[in-house]
Amino acid sequence: MTRALRELGEDKLLAQVFPRLNRNSRVVIGAGDDCAVVKFRGAKDWLLLKTDCVVEEVHFTKETNARAVGWKAMMRALSDFAAMSGIPEFALITLAVPAKKKASWVGELYRGLNRAATRFDVAIVGGETSETAGPVVIVVSVAGVVERDRCILRSGGKANDDLFVTGELGGSIRGRHLRFVARIDEARWLTANFKVHAMMDLSDGLGTDVPRLARASKLGFSIDQRALPLSRACSIQQAISDGEDYELLFAISPRNRTRLEKLWRKKFPKLPLTRIGKLDRQSAISDQQLPRGYVHFRQRR
Amino acid sequence: MTRALRELGEDKLLAQVFPRLNRNSRVVIGAGDDCAVVKFRGAKDWLLLKTDCVVEEVHFTKETNARAVGWKAMMRALSDFAAMSGIPEFALITLAVPAKKKASWVGELYRGLNRAATRFDVAIVGGETSETAGPVVIVVSVAGVVERDRCILRSGGKANDDLFVTGELGGSIRGRHLRFVARIDEARWLTANFKVHAMMDLSDGLGTDVPRLARASKLGFSIDQRALPLSRACSIQQAISDGEDYELLFAISPRNRTRLEKLWRKKFPKLPLTRIGKLDRQSAISDQQLPRGYVHFRQRR
Repeated sequence: MTRALRELGEDKLLAQVFPRLNRNSRVVIGAGDDCAVVKFRGAKDWLLLKTDCVVEEVHFTKETNARAVGWKAMMRALSDFAAMSGIPEFALITLAVPAKKKASWVGELYRGLNRAATRFDVAIVGGETSETAGPVVIVVSVAGVVERDRCILRSGGKANDDLFVTGELGGSIRGRHLRFVARIDEARWLTANFKVHAMMDLSDGLGTDVPRLARASKLGFSIDQRALPLSRACSIQQAISDGEDYELLFAISPRNRTRLEKLWRKKFPKLPLTRIGKLDRQSAISDQQLPRGYVHFRQRR
Repeated sequence: MTRALRELGEDKLLAQVFPRLNRNSRVVIGAGDDCAVVKFRGAKDWLLLKTDCVVEEVHFTKETNARAVGWKAMMRALSDFAAMSGIPEFALITLAVPAKKKASWVGELYRGLNRAATRFDVAIVGGETSETAGPVVIVVSVAGVVERDRCILRSGGKANDDLFVTGELGGSIRGRHLRFVARIDEARWLTANFKVHAMMDLSDGLGTDVPRLARASKLGFSIDQRALPLSRACSIQQAISDGEDYELLFAISPRNRTRLEKLWRKKFPKLPLTRIGKLDRQSAISDQQLPRGYVHFRQRR
C-alpha cells in the first residue's frame, strides 16, 4: 500500500478497501454492482443509491459545452439505474470549481444537469459547492426505487443464457458520449415483460464489461464478433474496446429469444437489439485470469 | 452571469440556479435546509439525503493525517443529519485523486471514513474513484430516515422561542474541526423528549447561522453575547465567527426551559447546553439586509 495509485490501479485499491467497510442489516447489495441496493424502513420496494463523477480533462475538456457536461454527468448516474431496471427519483449535485470560473459556465452546467434529470422526472433536491485550485469535479448522487422482483443484478446469469445488447457499439467519443440517453425506459419495459437474469450498462467497453457480468454470475461466455452491432465507421475492435456506450447488456433464457425480438421491434422500432453471444459453464480453473479486450475476447478454456 | 464565481459568490449563484431545478411530487424539502427531505414509495417515514465535500487546501492541508480527513469528511455529512434529528444509514464515497497519490494515503482515508460511519452504524455501500490533475476532492453522500413528526427544519421557529446551543464555540481550527462527533444522539434525545421548533448545525459560525435560522423562520433574534459558551482561550468574536463548530442550534418554547436544562444535565453531564438568546418578531422592513458577523450581531431594527 506504499505504491502510488497509478501502479496499484483502482480495481485493486477498491478490492482492498471495500471488504473492510462497515455494513448493516439493511444492506442488500453493497459496493460492486451498478447501484447499491438497500432496504428502507417500512417500505416493500428497495432503495437504490448511486454516485458518479466527471472530472475536467478526464471526462470532458475545457472546451466542452457546459450544458453537455451537465447532461453527461447526470445521464451517467441514471444509466446505472437503467442497469438494475430501477427508477431514479432524486439527485444531489456536488461541485468543486475554481473561483475564477465564469458563473455563466456553472449556470449552463446546471441547465444540462437539470435537463437530463427532467427527462426522467428526477428532482434535483440539493447540493454543495466548494472552491478548488484544480480541475472542475462534478459529482452526481442519485436515489431511487426498484421493486424487489424487478431488481436485476449482474450476478443472476445462467449457463446457456443469450447475451443481448441494445443500440450500437463503438465510436462514442465522436460525440455520443455527451448526448446519450440512459436506457431506463427500455430496462423497465424488459423487466415488465420478461424474466431478465442479469444486466449491466456498458460503460468501459464490451471487452471489459462482458467478463464482469460473466464473472459476477460465476460463468464463462462466448461472443460472436461478427454479430456485434457496429456504430457507423467503427471496427469490431472499437466496438469491443471503446467504452462509454451506455447501452444495456443483459442475459436472458434462449426460450425467450423469438418473443423478445418480435416484441422489441414493435416497441422500440428505432433501437437495434442484438444477440451477441451466450453465457456458458466456466472452466474448471477457478481463479483463471479473466480475458480483457480484443485478443482474448473469446474466453480461453 | 458573465462574472467569475469569486465576484458573484456561492449563495447568489445557488439562489439563481436552484429555483429553476426540476422538482417532483415526492419532494418535501428541496435545496436550502440541512438535508433534502423526500417521500419514499410505500414508507411512512421520510427519506433524508445529503451530500457534502472536503477539498485539499480548502478543508484540509497536504500535511493533514489522512485518517482525520476521512473522519471529518464523513462527520460533516452526519452532522447535517443531526440538524434534522435524522438517522443516517447509508453512505457513498466519491474520490477524485491524482494518480501519483500513495495508495496508503487512500487506505488511511477510507479507514477514517469507515470509523466515523461505524460510530453511527452507517454502512458505506459504494463509491467511485476518478483521477484528477488537481487537489484531492472527497464527496460523501448519505441517505437516512426520519419520522415525519420528528423531522426538524430551520423554518419552524416561533416568536419568543429560546435559542440553545450544545457544546462550546470557537477555536475549532486548533484541531476540533478534525475530531468532532456529530450530535446525532443528542438530537434524537431532544426530539424524543421535547417539541423542538427549529434546528440546524453550526458550520459557518454563529454569526452566519443564527440569522439563517431566524430568516428561515421569518423572525428576528437577539443574542446575549455574554452568555456564549466559549471554548478555552477563545474570544466572543471567535465564538461568533470561527465556524466549523458542528454543534446544534435549536429553538424551543421557553415553557420547556427548566425541564430541558434539568433533564439535559442528567442525560449529557459532560456536554454544556446554553441558552444564548431568543427569536422575536421581525421588524416591518421586509427585505432588510440580514446582519452577519460580530459588529451587527444584535439584529438592528
